[in-house]
Amino acid sequence: MTSPLPGSIHRASLVAEVIAIGSEMLFSNRVDTHSVYIAGRLDGYGVPLIARSIVGDDSRVIKQALGLALTRSDFIFLTGGLGPTEDDVTRHAVSELLSLELKYHSEIVEQIKDRFRRLGRTMNEINKRQGFILETATALENTEGTAPGQYLKYEGRHIFLLPGPPQEMQPMIQRHLIPLLDQLGLRPASRKYFRIAELPESHVETLVAPIYRQYPEIHATILAAPGDIELFFRAEDDSSRLSELADRITQVLGDSVYATEEITLEVVLAHLLKERRSTLAVAESCTGGMLGEWITRIPGSSEFFLGGVIAYSNTLKSQLLEVPPKLLHRYGAVSAPIAEAMAEGMRKRVGSDYGVSITGVAGPSGGSEAKPVGTVFVGYSDGEKKQSVRFHFLGDREVIRIQSTRAALNMLRKEVLQSKRQARGRKSKA
Amino acid sequence: MTSPLPGSIHRASLVAEVIAIGSEMLFSNRVDTHSVYIAGRLDGYGVPLIARSIVGDDSRVIKQALGLALTRSDFIFLTGGLGPTEDDVTRHAVSELLSLELKYHSEIVEQIKDRFRRLGRTMNEINKRQGFILETATALENTEGTAPGQYLKYEGRHIFLLPGPPQEMQPMIQRHLIPLLDQLGLRPASRKYFRIAELPESHVETLVAPIYRQYPEIHATILAAPGDIELFFRAEDDSSRLSELADRITQVLGDSVYATEEITLEVVLAHLLKERRSTLAVAESCTGGMLGEWITRIPGSSEFFLGGVIAYSNTLKSQLLEVPPKLLHRYGAVSAPIAEAMAEGMRKRVGSDYGVSITGVAGPSGGSEAKPVGTVFVGYSDGEKKQSVRFHFLGDREVIRIQSTRAALNMLRKEVLQSKRQARGRKSKA
Repeated sequence: MTSPLPGSIHRASLVAEVIAIGSEMLFSNRVDTHSVYIAGRLDGYGVPLIARSIVGDDSRVIKQALGLALTRSDFIFLTGGLGPTEDDVTRHAVSELLSLELKYHSEIVEQIKDRFRRLGRTMNEINKRQGFILETATALENTEGTAPGQYLKYEGRHIFLLPGPPQEMQPMIQRHLIPLLDQLGLRPASRKYFRIAELPESHVETLVAPIYRQYPEIHATILAAPGDIELFFRAEDDSSRLSELADRITQVLGDSVYATEEITLEVVLAHLLKERRSTLAVAESCTGGMLGEWITRIPGSSEFFLGGVIAYSNTLKSQLLEVPPKLLHRYGAVSAPIAEAMAEGMRKRVGSDYGVSITGVAGPSGGSEAKPVGTVFVGYSDGEKKQSVRFHFLGDREVIRIQSTRAALNMLRKEVLQSKRQARGRKSKA
Repeated sequence: MTSPLPGSIHRASLVAEVIAIGSEMLFSNRVDTHSVYIAGRLDGYGVPLIARSIVGDDSRVIKQALGLALTRSDFIFLTGGLGPTEDDVTRHAVSELLSLELKYHSEIVEQIKDRFRRLGRTMNEINKRQGFILETATALENTEGTAPGQYLKYEGRHIFLLPGPPQEMQPMIQRHLIPLLDQLGLRPASRKYFRIAELPESHVETLVAPIYRQYPEIHATILAAPGDIELFFRAEDDSSRLSELADRITQVLGDSVYATEEITLEVVLAHLLKERRSTLAVAESCTGGMLGEWITRIPGSSEFFLGGVIAYSNTLKSQLLEVPPKLLHRYGAVSAPIAEAMAEGMRKRVGSDYGVSITGVAGPSGGSEAKPVGTVFVGYSDGEKKQSVRFHFLGDREVIRIQSTRAALNMLRKEVLQSKRQARGRKSKA
C-alpha cells in the first residue's frame, strides 16, 4: 500500500517514538491517531519515528516500553493514561521507572476546579490525582480538558506525557514540541508535498520515479489510499535541488495534483466554490450519501452546498430528479445518459450553479458482463455544459464507493478550475 | 474512552503480543488490522494481547521488540517483512537474535515458481529469498501469496512469522494458530456480548457495575464509541454463572441493547426492515448524507432503502420535502416541528413505509443560547405516527454527526420493533 520509494536515503540523526497507552487500543480497530499526528510534526523537522507501541493500562508493560525507548530514542511521547481514574497509571509508571517523585500542585487542581466551574459542574475528588507532576517535569497546560501534560528531560532524552484525546494532545504539541525543536536548533526540513487524485499509485510511480531517482540526496515517500495519493520529498540541506525536482514533478503530474499542502480534495473544492460564490447540489445513487457527507464535513459548507438527493431507487431518480423513466428503461440506471440527467435534474431542481452525480455498481452483486461491479458513471452539469465519465474501479464495496466519491469531487474541481480560467481569460481580454 | 470495568479480574495465564513490521505503518493513518484480527482470535481463548508494536523495516529495532516480547509473552506474532526485497528483514532479524540459521528450502521455491506459473508469469530471482526458513521452524504454506509463514517454539515461547497482507495472514492463523491453541489444551472461553445504543458510557456503567461486581470470576470489558457501546463478559470455567449474569444485564439494559453479536446498528435495522418487507427513506440536514451512507454500506440495502434528501439548505427542505416555509420561519430549521415535517414529507414524497429525519447544529458555529452546538432533532413518521426527539450531543462536528446518525437509526429500530410487536399482538388476538 505504502512505501518509501526505492533509492531514497534517510540521514536524520535524532529519532523519536510514541508509546500509546490504553487497553481499548489493544482490542479496537480504532486508529492510534496520536502517532500519525506526532510523526507528521516531527517529519517536518527530519526526525523520524522509529517505533510505535500500543500498551494496555498496565504499569509493568508501560515501564518496559519506556525502558526500551530510553535506550534508543531522543524524543519519547507517552500518550494517554493521564485521566483521574485508577486505570490511569502513566504518571506512576514513569515515576517508578525513573525514580522521580510525583509532587502535588494545588494550583493545577485549582485550574481544573475552575474548568469544571465554567462548565457549571463540580470537580470530582478523584480529579485531584491529575495535580501530581513528576518532580523534574514541567506541567503543560491543557486548554481543552483536565489532564495537564508533562515534559521532562531525562539523561538527554526528551520525554512528553500527553493526554489521550487528540483535541487535548495536539495543542500541547503545537505549543511545546515545536518551540523545543526550534530551540534545539533543528530546522524545519525543506519539503515538497503533492496530493494527487485520479491516478493509480503504479501510474504515479511510473511517472515520477525516473525523475526523483536523479536526486538521490532527496528523501521520497509515497502514501496511497483509494483514489488519493500523497507524495512527499524531503531535503535536509540545499533546497534549490528540491525546488527543481518539485517543478519537474509538477510538470509530469499536471492537474492531477489537487494540493501542495496537507488538505483534502473536498477542502480544495470548498475553497474554489467559495471563492467563486458558486453553489453545488449532488445526486447520488451507489454512494448513498457519501459525497454529501464528505462535503458537509467541512464547517461552513452551507455557504456553497445546497444539498442533494440520494436517488437509490429508480423511482426516486424520476420523482425527485426528473430523470425520464423512458431514459432509465432504455439505458439502465448505471449509464452515461442517466448520470448526466441526474446531475442536470438536480441542478435545475434546486437552482445551483453546479450539479454532480454518481451512479454505479458498488457490488458485491448487481454486476453484469457489460457493467461489472466497479462500473461507475460520474455526471456533471453547469447549465452550459453536461458531461459524464465512465470509471471502472477495483476493490470491495467500500473502496469502490470511496473512489467514486473522490472521482466526483475531482471532476468538479477540474471543471470549476477550468471555468475560472475561462472567466479570467475573458476578463483579461475585455 | 474505553476501559476494563473496575472490579474485573484477569486471570489468563498466557499472554500474547504482536510486532507489526513495515515503515509505511509508522507514517500512515491506516489501522494495523493484523493486531485487531489476532487479538480477536486469541480473546476467544482467553489469551489477552498485552502490547502491539509497530516498527520500521529496521533489523535493530525489530530485534529489540522481539527481545522484549521474549521476556513476557507466550505467543509472539511478527507480521510483515517477509517479502522478497531487501527491505524485508524479518527473517534475518529473528535469525540473528535467536542465533538460528536460515536454511534454504528448494521445495518452497518450487511452490513459489508454480504459483507464478499458474498466474502466467515467471518468478523473479529475488523471490528465492523467500525460500529461507529458520532452522527450527516449520514453514507455513501461503495459499494466497508467495511468502511462506514460519512457526517455531523457542524457550517455551510460540513465535509466528506471518506475511503482512491480511488475506495471506488470516488463513495461516486459522490453519495453524487455532489448532495450536486447541493442542495446548486452551478451550474457547464462554462469552456474552452486548451492543448498546443511546445510553452514555457512564450511564451503562452505573447500571451494570452493581451486577457484574457480584461475579468476580467473570472478566468484563466495555468499549465506547460515540453513541455506541460494546460490553463483553468472559468466563473461563463454568458458564451457568455467565448466563445468569447475562440475563440480569439484559433486564437492566432493556431495549437499549440492539445486538448480542458483533454486528452494527444499521445491520440490525436492515434485518428488521427486510423481515417486514418495509421500506425507508431519509431526510438529512446536519449529517449531510451520513445516515444514507451508513445504510447503503450494507450490500443489498436497495431491498428496503429507497433513498433520501440531503436538505442542507432551507430551500431544499421546502422544495423537495414540502416543509412549509411558514413553519421554517416560525420554529427555525432546527426544531421538533421541522424534524417531523421532514420525516413526514420524505415518506409521503416517495411512498415509503418509514421516514426518518435529522436536523441539528453540528457546529462549530451556528449555535445559539436556545439551541447550542450539539442540539439535534431526530424525526420519525410511519403514516400513523409522527414524533421527534431532541438530543444534546457533546463533541466536535464529526462526533455530533455520528451520534445523530446512530440516534436516528436507533429510533427507527425501536419503532419498527414496536410495530412488529403490535403486529404480532394483533395476529395472536385474531
